[in-house]
Order: sequence, then structure tokens, then C-alpha cells
Amino acid sequence: MLVNLEMKLETRGAGDIVDITPRLRELIRGSEIMSGSVIVFSPSATSGLTTLEYEPGLIKDLPQLLERLIPSDCPYHHDKTWQDGNGFSHLRAALIGPGITIPFVKGELSLGTWQQVVFLEFDNQARSRRLVVQISGEGKKD
Amino acid sequence: MLVNLEMKLETRGAGDIVDITPRLRELIRGSEIMSGSVIVFSPSATSGLTTLEYEPGLIKDLPQLLERLIPSDCPYHHDKTWQDGNGFSHLRAALIGPGITIPFVKGELSLGTWQQVVFLEFDNQARSRRLVVQISGEGKKD
Amino acid sequence: MLVNLEMKLETRGAGDIVDITPRLRELIRGSEIMSGSVIVFSPSATSGLTTLEYEPGLIKDLPQLLERLIPSDCPYHHDKTWQDGNGFSHLRAALIGPGITIPFVKGELSLGTWQQVVFLEFDNQARSRRLVVQISGEGKKD
Repeated sequence: MLVNLEMKLETRGAGDIVDITPRLRELIRGSEIMSGSVIVFSPSATSGLTTLEYEPGLIKDLPQLLERLIPSDCPYHHDKTWQDGNGFSHLRAALIGPGITIPFVKGELSLGTWQQVVFLEFDNQARSRRLVVQISGEGKKD
Repeated sequence: MLVNLEMKLETRGAGDIVDITPRLRELIRGSEIMSGSVIVFSPSATSGLTTLEYEPGLIKDLPQLLERLIPSDCPYHHDKTWQDGNGFSHLRAALIGPGITIPFVKGELSLGTWQQVVFLEFDNQARSRRLVVQISGEGKKD
Repeated sequence: MLVNLEMKLETRGAGDIVDITPRLRELIRGSEIMSGSVIVFSPSATSGLTTLEYEPGLIKDLPQLLERLIPSDCPYHHDKTWQDGNGFSHLRAALIGPGITIPFVKGELSLGTWQQVVFLEFDNQARSRRLVVQISGEGKKD
């Protein structure tokens, strides 16, 4: 069985981290699939997905780390051509990756207690985002 | 077809790299699935999965690289709040990612000759770890 | 349904970035699968896959970033043992990851308009590469 869904998000620009775990759990619960996996994919070149303990310290630490590794004020070639100033966003996105695949078993996402699925906004402005959520596996009646 | 399995590991704390390829091959061989993919997922926010040539040089190089990029002795916000001193572990985990998806064809994992599937321990202490291993694909009798 | 395919590439060594999106679209179109996901996996420990806006600026920026984070002229332990001088290639590959999983819906890859699937060559010489492409999902006649 395969179900194609979407999740819409509003973000506040670079450094914004959104915990999508509750909505992901809801989508899985609402599907007719009992065990399988979910792919969450961002059709964008300036955002990413990973897991993180979503707590006030780390949601400051991760953007600060990325700012140190891939500074926003560097003269990237991308910016010279396109003048949109988001070269750093593209590079952070390529490093983190645009998607994540997570198994779930008997309706429960296989996450740790302190582990959330997070959407990372890297673009240098607030954005409306649409994530592709594809759930596949064995149906409740299989 | 879908099979949900587990793999248990004992690690020695940050910098420990465990080659899980032989056990992964065994789990695939033991399943009734001939071609498909395996998701290995760590339900934890302080560890990660990737591939690496598992040889004595690189298993020193990779922890040294991560120590340089994400030092363990930095004052992270996470540590100020939680006093557990593993802010660096969380950040390394978010960067590397908690899971990996690998295809296998006719019972053989699609890995290169010098490529192993490795579990990376980032936490600042020895840990007992449980990995979720989900194998899906076409059965041997399909 | 499950289809196992391959994609062959010639690369020019470290820093080379190949846009594989058109060939990936072709392989999906040629399969009998309408909705599902594609895993692209590099059976190699010195290359990686991610997404990137494939434009002249970023295909210079990304190699320059990786050169800054993981320099090619560092004395890595790997190189002391194997004398092949590609320790940096292995480390970049472990960081970026060897594969990517992308959903597609009604025959269309769920990519953004400015987002391409790219193969990153990290090895210090030109290489002939073979990628594993596994497409799974619901057939056109299902």
C-alpha cells in the first residue's frame, strides 16, 4: 500500500527549526498502513530534514553551528550571479539533505524518546513550504 | 513483503564506530526477501549511520574530523540547560543523520567492495543501542 | 512492484558534480511504476548523492566548501597506511552519505523547480561509476 500526502508549513527564514513529529504521527495514524516507512521530502534546494532533540538549547546550537561552518556573509559564487544572497542556504541544504526515511511499526514511528523529526529552513526569508509525505507498507487489513 | 527486525549493539562512547555490515547481511539472508531495500534507523538523537571503508586509518580520521568541526569542549546552549555535556553529540547526530536506506538485489547488499555500513556513536559515554532494521521487497517465492 | 536498474557515469575526479536528474526521470518513465520512490545508491566509499540547484555558481561553491571543511592536503591516517592520498574523499563521502531516496507521484519526481539530484565525485582521480537505481511502488495497471 502507498499513500501520497502533503504537509504545509510556514517558516520564519534561516535558522528556523520546525518540529513536524506530531503532524507526521497524525498522518500515519490517518493512513490505512500499519507497518512500513514514511519518506518526508522537501521539494526545495534551500531546506533540509533530519532528527533532533527539539529543545530550546539545541534549536539555538544547530543554527549557530551551521553559521560557523557555512557562514551567511561569505561571498559565494551563487550570490554573484543571482544576487539573492542565499548561497549559504543552498550549501547547508546540500549538506543536510532534502529528505528522511523513517520506519514505523504497528502504527508507531521508530523514534527515540528524545528524538524529533525536524524541518530546517535555510533560506534567507520567511517561506511557505510544502513537504511531500509518502507512506508505504502493509495495510491494517493485510 | 515487510520484515521488522532489531539489532543490538554495545558501544564505547563518542568516536566509536561499529561495522554492522556482517550482521545486516545475515538479517537479509534470514528474511524471505530476495530483492528490495533495508532501512537501518537509530532511535536516538546522539548517534548516526553512514557508510565508510572500515579500516584503522579512517576510524581515527572520522572522529578527529568531527571533533574539529563540532568540538566536544564548546559551551553549547544544550549543556547549560541539561548539564549532560553532550551537546556536541546531538549536533553531530543531526549532521550525519539517524538512518540509512540501502538497496539489495538477489540477496546481495548493493555495497562497494571497500564500503561498510557503520554505526557512529556520538554520546559521551558507553551505550547499549538498539537499531531498527526494516527489510522490504519481493519475496523469494514471488 | 520493484525494478532494479543501473546508471553509469564518467567523472573527472574530486569536485566533479553530475546532474543525474534527466536520466533518473527517464528511468522512472521507462518503468511500469506510477507512484512510489526511487533509491539512488552509490556502491562506493568515495562519492555521494544529494540535491542541489545545478547552476555554475553552486557547482563551484560546494567543492570549495568541502575543501575548506575537509581539506585535501591534510595528513589523514588513511593516507599514511594506503598511500593513495584520498583520505579526504572518504571523509567527504561519509559526511554527505552514499544514497538518496526520492518519492515520485503520478510519474513525476517530487523535486522542486530549482532542485536537481546530483552525484558528487570525491575521489582524487577520474572514475567510471555505476549507480544502483531501485524503483518501487504501484504499477500503472494496479
